[in-house]
Amino acid sequence: MQQIGDEFIYPVRVYYEDTDAGGVVYYSNYLNFMERARTEWLRHMGYEQSKLVEQLNVAFVVRRVEVDYLKPAGFDAMLSVHTHIVQLGKVSFTCKQQIKLNDEMICKGIVKVACVDVSAKKTALMPTEIYQSLQKMLNHA
Amino acid sequence: MQQIGDEFIYPVRVYYEDTDAGGVVYYSNYLNFMERARTEWLRHMGYEQSKLVEQLNVAFVVRRVEVDYLKPAGFDAMLSVHTHIVQLGKVSFTCKQQIKLNDEMICKGIVKVACVDVSAKKTALMPTEIYQSLQKMLNHA
Amino acid sequence: MQQIGDEFIYPVRVYYEDTDAGGVVYYSNYLNFMERARTEWLRHMGYEQSKLVEQLNVAFVVRRVEVDYLKPAGFDAMLSVHTHIVQLGKVSFTCKQQIKLNDEMICKGIVKVACVDVSAKKTALMPTEIYQSLQKMLNHA
Amino acid sequence: MQQIGDEFIYPVRVYYEDTDAGGVVYYSNYLNFMERARTEWLRHMGYEQSKLVEQLNVAFVVRRVEVDYLKPAGFDAMLSVHTHIVQLGKVSFTCKQQIKLNDEMICKGIVKVACVDVSAKKTALMPTEIYQSLQKMLNHA
Repeated sequence: MQQIGDEFIYPVRVYYEDTDAGGVVYYSNYLNFMERARTEWLRHMGYEQSKLVEQLNVAFVVRRVEVDYLKPAGFDAMLSVHTHIVQLGKVSFTCKQQIKLNDEMICKGIVKVACVDVSAKKTALMPTEIYQSLQKMLNHA
Repeated sequence: MQQIGDEFIYPVRVYYEDTDAGGVVYYSNYLNFMERARTEWLRHMGYEQSKLVEQLNVAFVVRRVEVDYLKPAGFDAMLSVHTHIVQLGKVSFTCKQQIKLNDEMICKGIVKVACVDVSAKKTALMPTEIYQSLQKMLNHA
Repeated sequence: MQQIGDEFIYPVRVYYEDTDAGGVVYYSNYLNFMERARTEWLRHMGYEQSKLVEQLNVAFVVRRVEVDYLKPAGFDAMLSVHTHIVQLGKVSFTCKQQIKLNDEMICKGIVKVACVDVSAKKTALMPTEIYQSLQKMLNHA
Repeated sequence: MQQIGDEFIYPVRVYYEDTDAGGVVYYSNYLNFMERARTEWLRHMGYEQSKLVEQLNVAFVVRRVEVDYLKPAGFDAMLSVHTHIVQLGKVSFTCKQQIKLNDEMICKGIVKVACVDVSAKKTALMPTEIYQSLQKMLNHA
């Protein structure tokens, strides 16, 4: 995985578990691939979500997704998930995530993620440091 | 499962496999629940997708989803997926799918499904009979 | 779902999400089906696992599985999971679980489940009431 | 991923999708991790399963698994799957697969995999070249 400009690129290999009887990646599994990429993108910025829960009592949860399925991808395909932030608020941020096979777009999504207080189970202000890291990413664009 | 007016209601129990370390249903699994409901809705109209592939060489594939995650649902929750058609074209249809826990909305989605020719791997006209069944559902609204 | 003698029978429909590019149920998904059946079997005896955690601080976790895959099952297949207890100890029990398509055996497993103290994260004595319910099942055989 | 002696080591990061409400990896997902490792092990030997189907009309399917769950693994854990062959026949082979977190064993499995003729849907002789590659691995031990 690597960062090029404001874009974070994460590779995903398609395994049997990801496909369905249609011979291609099952539609909900692209959301798993997108979450893996967001997790690595946050880790790349220095944030491990398991530690955010333990140390700061906050977690990131998805509030909304829009996904367009453009082309199928089959078993053994080597995909890449391209992630960049497009909107940042005090309690949430929105990512654009594109999944490519070679240079062809397979699937693209817009994912809105909110920060929640884990004990109170309520939307919460993002920790300042994370907000600033995301702002830097956004300005980079 | 049952049909009330134009709405098809399909029950889903939340099992361990559906949850994640946050203690609630993982976000992509709602798309699985929605697909199960669409599958039963088509079966209820008389169409088994495995037979559509074998006999008519067509399959239904998701082209686009929009999902809003409103409330979490935990292990053992008894959910219901409420499905109804909102748009119908010659090669695709769009469903509104709402997932409820008791009477509370947990998650709602708009799912666009296209008919494809399985061998040609291309969008195809929907079989007339299915088109008419869906039209009846649409007019029922 | 129903109980016949000591055997608990739970129906499972195969959806797209359960299959893989080979056109049949992916091998790990049978473990999901078995867990769903065990969950409903415990619920049928009066035990909801989410409540066991909340009220008694105990959970059931799988310690060992042996699974034989005998025949494939495809999309839309209507399976049944046949569960009965074959061994009972103070801290664990073992189930035999057979998955059938019509009357044909598709897959069979032996699953050892242990009771754990959720806070201590250690094996724990099973609550007496559950032990007695399982013993009744075992004697029924 | 790397090969050390006869052992093939494949890293797996635990994501949200892999965990359940117990806060740890869901038991069936270890079978997914094992399959990913076997897939990469075969690829490392020069065999892509999607091409085996296309070119030789054969696929590998799991006939039997035995899995012991020894310790839990949580979200964000970095696991490694250690795979080596322990038995080889004309139509099937058996792997030992151990999953470790740091140097601790989390889970271990014995997986028997058979070669099948995809069209005939029957057990088939393994392609000679693959048999010989596996034999080399076995002798390496």
